[in-house]
Amino acid sequence: MRTLKVAMIGYGFMGAAHSQGWRTAPRMFDLPAAPEMSVIVGRRADAVAAAAQRWGWAESATDWREVVARDDIDVVDVVTPGGSHAEIAAAALDAGKHVLCEKPLANTVAEAESMAAAAERAQARGALSMVGFTYRRVPAATLARDLVARGKVGHIRQVRAAYRQDWLVDPQAPLAWRLQKEHAGSGALGDIGAHAVDMVQFITGRRVQRATGVVETIVEERPLPASEQAGPATQTGRVTVDDLALFTGRLDSGALAAFEATRYATGRKNALTVEVSGERGALFFDLEDLNTLQFYDRTAPEDQQGFTRISVTEPSHPYLSGWWPPGHLLGYEHGFSHQVKDLVEGIDSGTPPHPSFAEGLHVQRVLDAVQRSAAQDSVWVDV
Amino acid sequence: MRTLKVAMIGYGFMGAAHSQGWRTAPRMFDLPAAPEMSVIVGRRADAVAAAAQRWGWAESATDWREVVARDDIDVVDVVTPGGSHAEIAAAALDAGKHVLCEKPLANTVAEAESMAAAAERAQARGALSMVGFTYRRVPAATLARDLVARGKVGHIRQVRAAYRQDWLVDPQAPLAWRLQKEHAGSGALGDIGAHAVDMVQFITGRRVQRATGVVETIVEERPLPASEQAGPATQTGRVTVDDLALFTGRLDSGALAAFEATRYATGRKNALTVEVSGERGALFFDLEDLNTLQFYDRTAPEDQQGFTRISVTEPSHPYLSGWWPPGHLLGYEHGFSHQVKDLVEGIDSGTPPHPSFAEGLHVQRVLDAVQRSAAQDSVWVDV
Amino acid sequence: MRTLKVAMIGYGFMGAAHSQGWRTAPRMFDLPAAPEMSVIVGRRADAVAAAAQRWGWAESATDWREVVARDDIDVVDVVTPGGSHAEIAAAALDAGKHVLCEKPLANTVAEAESMAAAAERAQARGALSMVGFTYRRVPAATLARDLVARGKVGHIRQVRAAYRQDWLVDPQAPLAWRLQKEHAGSGALGDIGAHAVDMVQFITGRRVQRATGVVETIVEERPLPASEQAGPATQTGRVTVDDLALFTGRLDSGALAAFEATRYATGRKNALTVEVSGERGALFFDLEDLNTLQFYDRTAPEDQQGFTRISVTEPSHPYLSGWWPPGHLLGYEHGFSHQVKDLVEGIDSGTPPHPSFAEGLHVQRVLDAVQRSAAQDSVWVDV
Amino acid sequence: MRTLKVAMIGYGFMGAAHSQGWRTAPRMFDLPAAPEMSVIVGRRADAVAAAAQRWGWAESATDWREVVARDDIDVVDVVTPGGSHAEIAAAALDAGKHVLCEKPLANTVAEAESMAAAAERAQARGALSMVGFTYRRVPAATLARDLVARGKVGHIRQVRAAYRQDWLVDPQAPLAWRLQKEHAGSGALGDIGAHAVDMVQFITGRRVQRATGVVETIVEERPLPASEQAGPATQTGRVTVDDLALFTGRLDSGALAAFEATRYATGRKNALTVEVSGERGALFFDLEDLNTLQFYDRTAPEDQQGFTRISVTEPSHPYLSGWWPPGHLLGYEHGFSHQVKDLVEGIDSGTPPHPSFAEGLHVQRVLDAVQRSAAQDSVWVDV
Repeated sequence: MRTLKVAMIGYGFMGAAHSQGWRTAPRMFDLPAAPEMSVIVGRRADAVAAAAQRWGWAESATDWREVVARDDIDVVDVVTPGGSHAEIAAAALDAGKHVLCEKPLANTVAEAESMAAAAERAQARGALSMVGFTYRRVPAATLARDLVARGKVGHIRQVRAAYRQDWLVDPQAPLAWRLQKEHAGSGALGDIGAHAVDMVQFITGRRVQRATGVVETIVEERPLPASEQAGPATQTGRVTVDDLALFTGRLDSGALAAFEATRYATGRKNALTVEVSGERGALFFDLEDLNTLQFYDRTAPEDQQGFTRISVTEPSHPYLSGWWPPGHLLGYEHGFSHQVKDLVEGIDSGTPPHPSFAEGLHVQRVLDAVQRSAAQDSVWVDV
Repeated sequence: MRTLKVAMIGYGFMGAAHSQGWRTAPRMFDLPAAPEMSVIVGRRADAVAAAAQRWGWAESATDWREVVARDDIDVVDVVTPGGSHAEIAAAALDAGKHVLCEKPLANTVAEAESMAAAAERAQARGALSMVGFTYRRVPAATLARDLVARGKVGHIRQVRAAYRQDWLVDPQAPLAWRLQKEHAGSGALGDIGAHAVDMVQFITGRRVQRATGVVETIVEERPLPASEQAGPATQTGRVTVDDLALFTGRLDSGALAAFEATRYATGRKNALTVEVSGERGALFFDLEDLNTLQFYDRTAPEDQQGFTRISVTEPSHPYLSGWWPPGHLLGYEHGFSHQVKDLVEGIDSGTPPHPSFAEGLHVQRVLDAVQRSAAQDSVWVDV
Repeated sequence: MRTLKVAMIGYGFMGAAHSQGWRTAPRMFDLPAAPEMSVIVGRRADAVAAAAQRWGWAESATDWREVVARDDIDVVDVVTPGGSHAEIAAAALDAGKHVLCEKPLANTVAEAESMAAAAERAQARGALSMVGFTYRRVPAATLARDLVARGKVGHIRQVRAAYRQDWLVDPQAPLAWRLQKEHAGSGALGDIGAHAVDMVQFITGRRVQRATGVVETIVEERPLPASEQAGPATQTGRVTVDDLALFTGRLDSGALAAFEATRYATGRKNALTVEVSGERGALFFDLEDLNTLQFYDRTAPEDQQGFTRISVTEPSHPYLSGWWPPGHLLGYEHGFSHQVKDLVEGIDSGTPPHPSFAEGLHVQRVLDAVQRSAAQDSVWVDV
Repeated sequence: MRTLKVAMIGYGFMGAAHSQGWRTAPRMFDLPAAPEMSVIVGRRADAVAAAAQRWGWAESATDWREVVARDDIDVVDVVTPGGSHAEIAAAALDAGKHVLCEKPLANTVAEAESMAAAAERAQARGALSMVGFTYRRVPAATLARDLVARGKVGHIRQVRAAYRQDWLVDPQAPLAWRLQKEHAGSGALGDIGAHAVDMVQFITGRRVQRATGVVETIVEERPLPASEQAGPATQTGRVTVDDLALFTGRLDSGALAAFEATRYATGRKNALTVEVSGERGALFFDLEDLNTLQFYDRTAPEDQQGFTRISVTEPSHPYLSGWWPPGHLLGYEHGFSHQVKDLVEGIDSGTPPHPSFAEGLHVQRVLDAVQRSAAQDSVWVDV
């Protein structure tokens, strides 16, 4: 069986999750090619060496340019912060590597455009690319997409999606790099709102074409992190990204979709919810209850209608053949194994896996439209 | 339209609930006869006069014998403690009145037998009788019965029912009359276990034929109520009824049914739950979520199976035509209106309403069998 | 005890619910005055006479002007469609009657302003007024308000509210009067969005000051009702109100509140939900689970935090002293009894009950702002 | 860092789960010693070689006796069917290996006794042992044990536990080896009832001392598996194990615990539920919602009491420091990583990990008592 040597650039939280995917997928699924965890790349030699040891990468390195140029590398997995995605991914694609790039595709629309262009050029030469919107590969989310595609929901009349966390509710939570525009690009909008937009587009098969919305920084001044404090008085700094985004999109089907992305939803830890309302039925997905898909079937006998809690753990459900018996739950990181499975199968068969960089670019454009609308008193703007 | 003059004997908590039923049913349903709240009867003249005034009864009286003998009374509603049911109900039936008797039918099997016999005699003369197991008339419970009868659950393989409350968890809760055998007959078993048995028999259409079980008094000594305390030291008394009953019944279909009745289920306030597991489907009912029936349909496509939360509030659902639009919830006391509706319709058409005194007697026999088993080291005994 | 003679103007669905409140409240609560169901008024003599008989009103009448002028009437309860509220309520107030007016206060801001002015004038002369936003008086909603007022939620950072129904999902559902602007004023926005706005303002104690939003008619052409069809071909008519409203409000505290009102949320029957996110805690209320309030307490030990499902059925909870033991649920119509209780107590003590006509007017102004924003490409407008 | 060479005997479903634990634990936790997946052992050379390749074991072998005798092996992990546990585990312990043995400890009490004796002898020589009741290591279950130990539940008054599956509801499901006593020992009782008993003993810290119960084979004749069919007519065979067990145990604290183990609970896929009712609070755990622990705190203010849904995903929760941020869920197999973590830490520090073989033996004795009671008309028997 053919081997695919993988280099992963970056080694933060996402590095741990991607490593778990690369390590596990070949053990649980019959893959047509064998991924090998070859090199992990980071700036600090000792730290990246420790990460290699911990997560099981054969080598570590500090210069990503050298690594993506190596002849023996087949796949480059980019898990660095968004600001460096464009440069690394384009270099890897231009070097003929297949590229998996963590979301959001980039911090700006311009960068994302250059990446989508690079991906298109590379594909013509046989190098494939994929954006890491892993939540698509939570089996219940994939099933939602399938049920829509099979017509079980009928004509979609309305959609709502939210991604709610609460780690900023405490006004004394420190000014992390994620709260600074120069590092993070945007706040809740780009970090978690991007997932909400992608999920709606994935499940409905439709794209957001126009948007109106508001973005807001709720707590504008926060204490600097302990490591940056000096002297007796607490020093504070300015939050330069949004804490909350509320927006409405018009899908190309004409339906309206309501969105929320927030880090101030007290008690909601990782609540990505999507509800699709159609003429024949409805679907409800919640990432905090990720093994379940709720399905309402308007074609059932009237006195037996209701939301059915489908435990998406049967062998016939997406991705479940690789795992455990019915009722044995999957967790957060299983999506990363599914991502590896689909990428490896795509590479083996030469079929571009979804979501493409072009899809990732469209998500960026939607987020950009929301920011433009917010800056213009919330008028509707084209994506 | 014909008038039905009602006398209610008793005026405790159940008197309030029954009054609400008599008062409301004719306002919300098209009844074929008009019940009139004529007389309420109790031992203390001032208290029963106040109850008449409060709940809307035209008269009050203190001698139930006189009242049940009155020519103008059509229906006698017995809501006294269980120990007096037999005497009052039999007298009323023998006087040709229709009788509604609150559950449990009686405190002993012997009393219940005499009542069932009286009911049978009376029915031959046109006087009907009914036991007040109102939970049968929660629409979701009635729908459960209907779905079983329509074959939606298929051959029933197993049943479980529990009625859980928690008002005795505090060991300092006082020794109320309900904890004394001479007043209450039995404890959790007769008070709430009776409902669990009736619901299982109602929904499945089957009877418990044999039983094994245990009954237990968890806290055996409790402080006397404040009104009975005298002197500086707290005086206590002995709890002479059960706090908890755990039992298993064999239905006449052969299936096993597991039962629990307890007043020590911390956090469970009024949790009567019934789950029926069949070859084609399953049903789950919970009185703490009484507008919902959960239905699992094994004949649905495999990847869409799950428990469907049916909001039993559609016009096509049992009893709902009299109430509000879909999604507008009913509460605890609505069952008492449904009971009045069914009783009045039964009287008008001459059709005996369920549950009959014979059904109430069978519940008593099941409870008696549980006590006999418990007294014999939990061996199986015939009902 | 003083008697309060009540006249109810109107006899549709709301008439049934209000009648249930007038009939039940004095039976379950110790009221300081005794309401009497004196006269019900409607345009068609036979129909209103039947309603009087059915619901227990002593008399019926067809001319509301005569009735509100009668010396013996103390309270006028207005349950007609919104377009006639202003005229009736003002006449009643000017005649010195206490007035309960069903929501929405009026179909236009101008009408609502005149009513609020009339209420203010009347109050100076001792005649009180109240708008029928009964959902405030669902015990769980009142408890939510109380917990906010007691500081349990802390500084409120964000709010979301939605009212979702699904009775228009079928595009063949007929063109009811509620879908015609000349009768209904507006659609989902005024009918159910009004409740969402009132609940947010009630629970948070804050007012919406600015708004941005969109209103939408999803199905623009529907078949005429069967009664209006003639000839072989199905005749259709134009829907002239909104089906869906999505809007964001700025509260006077500075927090953002997201709103949705829709009749296209497949499977959601009467889902009024409100979530309040604060620095110390959060609250979640759902009218389809109306006996429950979910409360998240950020001051609890970290490893024990979570949403607590409070069963709002304890004697210490708002309005529960009048009803049943813990765990015995209330339903939709109980709020109407609580409304009667609070109104009667207010009249007896001379204390204006909430919500005042001024509060009802402010809700109208918010709805008006949403429509103005929607008409201007969703820019923010002042309320 | 010290290396621990592991040999795993067996390679069925449990082999996959244990392999995932050995592979993942060192990647996510800071272990004090490094487990190495050295040898996997099975009877069929080709199949076990394929399993080694698939799951990442360095070698495969067919003779477990040789392997457990190898000097280089430190740990033996036994995942064969229950009937062979005693022989393998004792041999490994006697050879000085640390042993992890999958549950149930053995098929008979006699075997389990010999294993417990072997474990005790071995421990004196420094070889540790552990039974694979992994559900103890679901973080929510561990938290439940901790809250009980910290006194948050107070004196425990009552316990209930059930393990419900539904894979036998279809009477045409074939006669698998698990339904034959010579292979499986017992049915639902030993397979899943064992988990229910262990969880109750683990969470409460108490042991079942006496038992009464019934075991039942619901469908007694089933078609032979397709592989064993011959000829035109369907051949059937006899089910020789129980399908369902209902029993009650008396804990050494005096409290009663109700148990159910069934393969006929239509719609329940893997529903291990435990509810503990105490004087100060209650706990509810459900394996189908395994990231949640529900906790009822009777010491909270009365109007704020309810079941709190704790999302057991905070860094301060058991085992969570190794995984993802709050709200990111774990799945079924994470318990196997936690088991490896605790075993490796126990070996490194010389501290016997729980559950010991003695604990596993006690579970077997409880199951045996249930069978003895069932055979004696459900009388109470001593464990």
